[in-house]
Amino acid sequence: MSFDVLQDKIREKKNPTVAGLDARVEYVPPHILEKYTGQYGQTLQAAALAVKEFDCGLIDALADTVPAVKPQSAYFEMLGWRGMQALEDVIAYAKSKGLYVIADVKRGDIGTTATAYAQAWLGAVQVGDTDCPVFDADCVTINGYMGSDAIRPFLEQCQARNKSAFVLVKTSNPSSMELQDLVAGDRLVYNVMGDLTQRLGRDTRGHYGFNALGAVVGATHPAVLKELRRRLPDVFFLVPGYGAQGGSADDVRHAFTELGRGAIVNASRSIMCAWQKTGKDGTDYQQAAYAAAEKMRDELRRTIAIL
Amino acid sequence: MSFDVLQDKIREKKNPTVAGLDARVEYVPPHILEKYTGQYGQTLQAAALAVKEFDCGLIDALADTVPAVKPQSAYFEMLGWRGMQALEDVIAYAKSKGLYVIADVKRGDIGTTATAYAQAWLGAVQVGDTDCPVFDADCVTINGYMGSDAIRPFLEQCQARNKSAFVLVKTSNPSSMELQDLVAGDRLVYNVMGDLTQRLGRDTRGHYGFNALGAVVGATHPAVLKELRRRLPDVFFLVPGYGAQGGSADDVRHAFTELGRGAIVNASRSIMCAWQKTGKDGTDYQQAAYAAAEKMRDELRRTIAIL
Repeated sequence: MSFDVLQDKIREKKNPTVAGLDARVEYVPPHILEKYTGQYGQTLQAAALAVKEFDCGLIDALADTVPAVKPQSAYFEMLGWRGMQALEDVIAYAKSKGLYVIADVKRGDIGTTATAYAQAWLGAVQVGDTDCPVFDADCVTINGYMGSDAIRPFLEQCQARNKSAFVLVKTSNPSSMELQDLVAGDRLVYNVMGDLTQRLGRDTRGHYGFNALGAVVGATHPAVLKELRRRLPDVFFLVPGYGAQGGSADDVRHAFTELGRGAIVNASRSIMCAWQKTGKDGTDYQQAAYAAAEKMRDELRRTIAIL
Repeated sequence: MSFDVLQDKIREKKNPTVAGLDARVEYVPPHILEKYTGQYGQTLQAAALAVKEFDCGLIDALADTVPAVKPQSAYFEMLGWRGMQALEDVIAYAKSKGLYVIADVKRGDIGTTATAYAQAWLGAVQVGDTDCPVFDADCVTINGYMGSDAIRPFLEQCQARNKSAFVLVKTSNPSSMELQDLVAGDRLVYNVMGDLTQRLGRDTRGHYGFNALGAVVGATHPAVLKELRRRLPDVFFLVPGYGAQGGSADDVRHAFTELGRGAIVNASRSIMCAWQKTGKDGTDYQQAAYAAAEKMRDELRRTIAIL
């Protein structure tokens, strides 16, 4: 099953990092942006082409050291259909480089609409009698506020196509407590979501022991990470909030099993925008991103044994 | 404020219906689909062009009787970037016909990512010193599982651009109870979400008395509609679940104030796919959609006085 594919890639590179591709226009080095605004003016088209070149450049720089990338749909949507075209291209390019692609879309809807989202991001769409894959990522993120109706259609695509999905359980942001930390009977709401995620995925266990349905759990809550790792032994974790948001290597180690498995830690800006801290003009963005990714890998390796 | 614009349109047409544009490829009448598959083969391009023609045809047919349309992003995303291009065109076309456009995207994320989504769907993106509008809908739907961090960036766009947003509070699907109906202290989770929605919107009250932040509340729970109408007097409701999912005119009337205000009822398949029930070949899809919309309007008028 699908998290086996990701776990294998993590073990191969001894690096449980996923690099977020969250490029706002301001994050693109000037020499790239200017190339396209010079040609197409200050337009969404220029911005989309610039973001695509930047993301593909990051993929080239990182493909040897990270096992996975996580393009964030919002930053492509904000550039309209040209942004979505760039996203299709970025996903395909990352896959061609052997990277596992987690499309961070946080979709959540029901019935035929949930099925449509699952087809869009993991599956394919039938036109006449032809099967057309669409964004075709390896994995997506899902919002389960609407309950299992919102999750099952994704699980079906996971089973049919050896893919996977992460359900938002306990997120890294400050206001996550407003809903997720409510006490409901003998459980907190995020535990209800976590238990649901583990239960729905139970028939999809892979050889590392993880179901095709994983959970998003923020690095900013180390005690919660520890508790959920115990509570949800079959659930693979995607851990945002490392670095900029405050989570350290010592915090995120609780997301992993004793064998250093079952979790991947996200870093976005610290890698993507590393060029803004070298004091140069951005033409060194690939070296800067690579160095930042290596630094993070080394930090994680110090507290997590990846067996 | 923005729901004033919608309420005015509802009063003008004496019709609190929003027509969902949720076109799966199978819902497009054969003569339209074949025109494009004949030209472009069984491709996403053909499907996207067919869906766009169908949606624009529905807009032409419905513009005199309904005040609003609600394109569902999933059905465009499933056709890839060409689908998103069709969505941009459909939104612009509906606005040009005087319709209020609710982009049903159910996005939910935090920080700069939430800002990116809000810019994408309601606002504009800056490229250099040029402001570029993107999908530019009048209103969106939001998923608030991540708390107020996920909602505020949309509210900022609403205030800056006289737009509005609906937060998912109590959805119409069977499994909505798994999370939303949990008892948390003296409130149910959906009440926590509803109260949060009312509180966050409080500085945006329009002249009809409704904030720019509305709530999605399903027609399938009439008792809940009644309770929430009382509890959230400043919150405009978007009510899905009418017809196919089981909600009747008698159920949805509880969503409205005594003056017949503060709510709009969604119908998707019953209008869009009305042509499948006329026994003809689909070339009558516009008349069939118009007749279905008139029938629904008349049903609603019988139980709801729109003053």
